[in-house]
Amino acid sequence: GHRGVDASGETTYKKTTSSTLKGAIQLGIGYTVGNLSSKPERDVLMQDFYVVESIFFPSEGSNLTPAHHYADFRFKTYAPVAFRYFRELFGIRPDDYLYSLCNEPLIELSNPGASGSLFYVTSDDEFIIKTVMHKEAEFLQKLLPGYYMNLNQNPRTLLPKFYGLYCVQSGGKNIRVVVMNNILPRVVKMHLKFDLKGSTYKRRASKKEKEKSSPTYKDLDFMQDMPEGLMLDADTFSALVKTLQRDCLV
Amino acid sequence: GHRGVDASGETTYKKTTSSTLKGAIQLGIGYTVGNLSSKPERDVLMQDFYVVESIFFPSEGSNLTPAHHYADFRFKTYAPVAFRYFRELFGIRPDDYLYSLCNEPLIELSNPGASGSLFYVTSDDEFIIKTVMHKEAEFLQKLLPGYYMNLNQNPRTLLPKFYGLYCVQSGGKNIRVVVMNNILPRVVKMHLKFDLKGSTYKRRASKKEKEKSSPTYKDLDFMQDMPEGLMLDADTFSALVKTLQRDCLV
Repeated sequence: GHRGVDASGETTYKKTTSSTLKGAIQLGIGYTVGNLSSKPERDVLMQDFYVVESIFFPSEGSNLTPAHHYADFRFKTYAPVAFRYFRELFGIRPDDYLYSLCNEPLIELSNPGASGSLFYVTSDDEFIIKTVMHKEAEFLQKLLPGYYMNLNQNPRTLLPKFYGLYCVQSGGKNIRVVVMNNILPRVVKMHLKFDLKGSTYKRRASKKEKEKSSPTYKDLDFMQDMPEGLMLDADTFSALVKTLQRDCLV
Repeated sequence: GHRGVDASGETTYKKTTSSTLKGAIQLGIGYTVGNLSSKPERDVLMQDFYVVESIFFPSEGSNLTPAHHYADFRFKTYAPVAFRYFRELFGIRPDDYLYSLCNEPLIELSNPGASGSLFYVTSDDEFIIKTVMHKEAEFLQKLLPGYYMNLNQNPRTLLPKFYGLYCVQSGGKNIRVVVMNNILPRVVKMHLKFDLKGSTYKRRASKKEKEKSSPTYKDLDFMQDMPEGLMLDADTFSALVKTLQRDCLV
């Protein structure tokens, strides 16, 4: 993975420190959302999915961008008009998006899973920012027209909500991040938590995990501890199954 | 163009007689719409735009297709699931589509314009069938995802309504046809008719055209005969302009 730790103990991603990355993300999203709000609303067109907006942030500042304490970087926004449309569909107002992401500190999550990605959550717990690999970003970009179709036809989808795809370019490195909904907000108190994969091979929470205050159990634990499954009322059940079935086609 | 006339005076397209083409279209659409109605409704996916369904109609009949009096042919349906969705959006019920196109005679239009295409109208005046060139069909197929997006965001669009794209393959020839809405149904009595292009070069109806009972006038005639333009009430005007502006972006 690209994740590391530097001499001072700070997390790094592709040798860029987490604080630099957070700063660049906040400056970049601040610019791109502000820039977009000055453009009139219009229909999303097919070609909008392929647009990449790019803006240079020299540390001394420019007539478009403020001065900052990081090295010069470039900030790229993928499909800005399409993502604006998605955010609108999801009920995210530009001001709220801007405020949550840019005006409040981003909090680094300490348990970022096996993927080698860095995860941040916004202070209000609304958004997750995750670093993605080149291939993943490319894949998401290609997926956008199909994603648009799914959202239109299946608005109750349980697939991840993507709010933005960005790239911080600095010192010859590209760090791509995606902004998503946080499906585990802290306000919802979890009394039992499963990470289910549909596999039984080595899918049991470790001893160490089970000692935690709110452990994440896995497939074999679920089968053992909840042999009767989950109880849902009939309407909720059929709505959930319908949504899952439609999501599985995409 | 590919349009011609054979020894008996019948119109031909790529040497195929109009009656053969009409017969093949009716058999083909009858099969494909019926076949589709046996498949459950589901969301349209990106990949549906690239599907081409193909069925062979030997003149002696097969276990899927009836016997007929034409030469063997193959009938291809482009993006069947996507067009089913479009027809539904346009409020066209499968039974009505089937009935209009397959159970009533198709009427050949005698004034098919300069393009060398053949035009048919259904007996109930609802649908137009037009032969299109290879490049046009290919273009329409590529356009489908963008067309989908336009219909969703701009349902009042004045762009043509496309209900189906098909290909009749016979004797080594491909004849592609598109089924569209008929914007000039006979029930609407036209007292004045313009074919406007936004050009003033040679855009005046010919003497011969003007002698007709319902001539089609052109741009220069419009400027001369209607110097004050058309009068619309303010709401209709602004709605129309808005729709045209959105249509012009696509």
